[in-house]
Amino acid sequence: METVATSTTASPAEIIRADIRAGRHAMVTTGLAPGYLQANLVILPADWGDEFLTFCAANAKACPLIAQSTAGDPGLPVLGHDLDVRKDLPRYRVFHDGAQTSEETDISALWRDDLVAFALGCSYSFEAALLDAGVPIRHIEQGKKVCTYRTGIDTVPVGRFHGKLVVSMRNFTAANAIRAIEITSRFPRVHGAPIHFGDPSDIGIADINTPEFGGEPDIRPGETPLFWACGVTPQSVIENAKPSFCVTQKAGHMLITDRLNEEFRAG
Amino acid sequence: METVATSTTASPAEIIRADIRAGRHAMVTTGLAPGYLQANLVILPADWGDEFLTFCAANAKACPLIAQSTAGDPGLPVLGHDLDVRKDLPRYRVFHDGAQTSEETDISALWRDDLVAFALGCSYSFEAALLDAGVPIRHIEQGKKVCTYRTGIDTVPVGRFHGKLVVSMRNFTAANAIRAIEITSRFPRVHGAPIHFGDPSDIGIADINTPEFGGEPDIRPGETPLFWACGVTPQSVIENAKPSFCVTQKAGHMLITDRLNEEFRAG
Repeated sequence: METVATSTTASPAEIIRADIRAGRHAMVTTGLAPGYLQANLVILPADWGDEFLTFCAANAKACPLIAQSTAGDPGLPVLGHDLDVRKDLPRYRVFHDGAQTSEETDISALWRDDLVAFALGCSYSFEAALLDAGVPIRHIEQGKKVCTYRTGIDTVPVGRFHGKLVVSMRNFTAANAIRAIEITSRFPRVHGAPIHFGDPSDIGIADINTPEFGGEPDIRPGETPLFWACGVTPQSVIENAKPSFCVTQKAGHMLITDRLNEEFRAG
Repeated sequence: METVATSTTASPAEIIRADIRAGRHAMVTTGLAPGYLQANLVILPADWGDEFLTFCAANAKACPLIAQSTAGDPGLPVLGHDLDVRKDLPRYRVFHDGAQTSEETDISALWRDDLVAFALGCSYSFEAALLDAGVPIRHIEQGKKVCTYRTGIDTVPVGRFHGKLVVSMRNFTAANAIRAIEITSRFPRVHGAPIHFGDPSDIGIADINTPEFGGEPDIRPGETPLFWACGVTPQSVIENAKPSFCVTQKAGHMLITDRLNEEFRAG
């Protein structure tokens, strides 16, 4: 019998995290460990940490902070007692001076004593709640990536961090749009309610059919696009701020935590 | 010093109800006793009561039942210990066989031992919450009545009760529409979230500029109309069902209760 890092009572989240750590899974985490909170990750040198923390607080819909490590410690015990941010994501983007320099499946060799990790809420949590409530999500039905767009809306600048808000888009009938707003508003720590619906040009999106990430959306007659603040925003902002060093997840390759989405439902 | 029906520690709701009972106030109750729940009223003979109760349960967004009296008892102690449904509304509509036969300010002379009173939630509660949250409501700003429309949507028929859903309309910018959906969804016992937004023809409204009640709406560029199930629906349904006898409030002339709107906020 093979020895695994987790006990025989391991949760689905622990089992998948062990698979990822062992290099057995380097794909997107969509749909894995249903019910468990997945998170965006940002790793920065400590001398950028306080500024980034303040930026997150000032832009909480795009950057809802879930947990923060202490400098040099790769653990985030509040999200999983054995969690290791150097090894537990399927794919990392590594940035030097604001430009991506490599993509990795393990960043142990790059780890430094001055690095701080930030975990931010992710829309997978509210997507699970939408599906549970019977609200269909087109890109998931079609096995595609969610469409995201860089808007014309400035984030609240903090120190060296500034840039435009990135949004994700999901389209619904009016009745399902209302349900989607109701449901996502109850997850304020994972982006919450949308920031806009309807005319994309109102938020500086010139052409809804050409997202920055994701393929062409499939918006049908009678459907309305809804736009949520997106956890890709920090990556966009980091490209502007140009910290000497930074690591994030690759889009869709999230940190799977031991916490339940339900714990992040308000009221 | 004048003797009043209420004690020296009377609440704003009790003071206004005493004024109404004494005939000193026969106008709409909009904005009176802020924070206190106002309710729609339907009074029916007991042999129509069970069917109406089931109709309300089947159509809870339009007919959210708050309280029900016992036959012959004009009190609703759960809404106010001294409350008297025969005297405490500023204006009543009296129906015989489904047609309005008179308008009254006191129905004591019409009271019978077989009558049952139903109090239903009212949008004033969520309007107060919207205003408290800084979401402006155009018709209130302009001192007008809310626009209501008979839709093409059938209520769920129960026994002799059937008819079209009536909706109220409020128009907002996209950002405020999202806030309005968030906030009203937290008041499921006072109509809850809207049932539709956007194209009025989707719900069988031919011309948004000609509401059934209220004046022409003032919908500005970039604004979206939101439609809520409306407490006028039972009056429309009663016109179809043609009970031998029925009393309701006149539109806007509501029952002011001792309960707080906040008690009806969910979560």
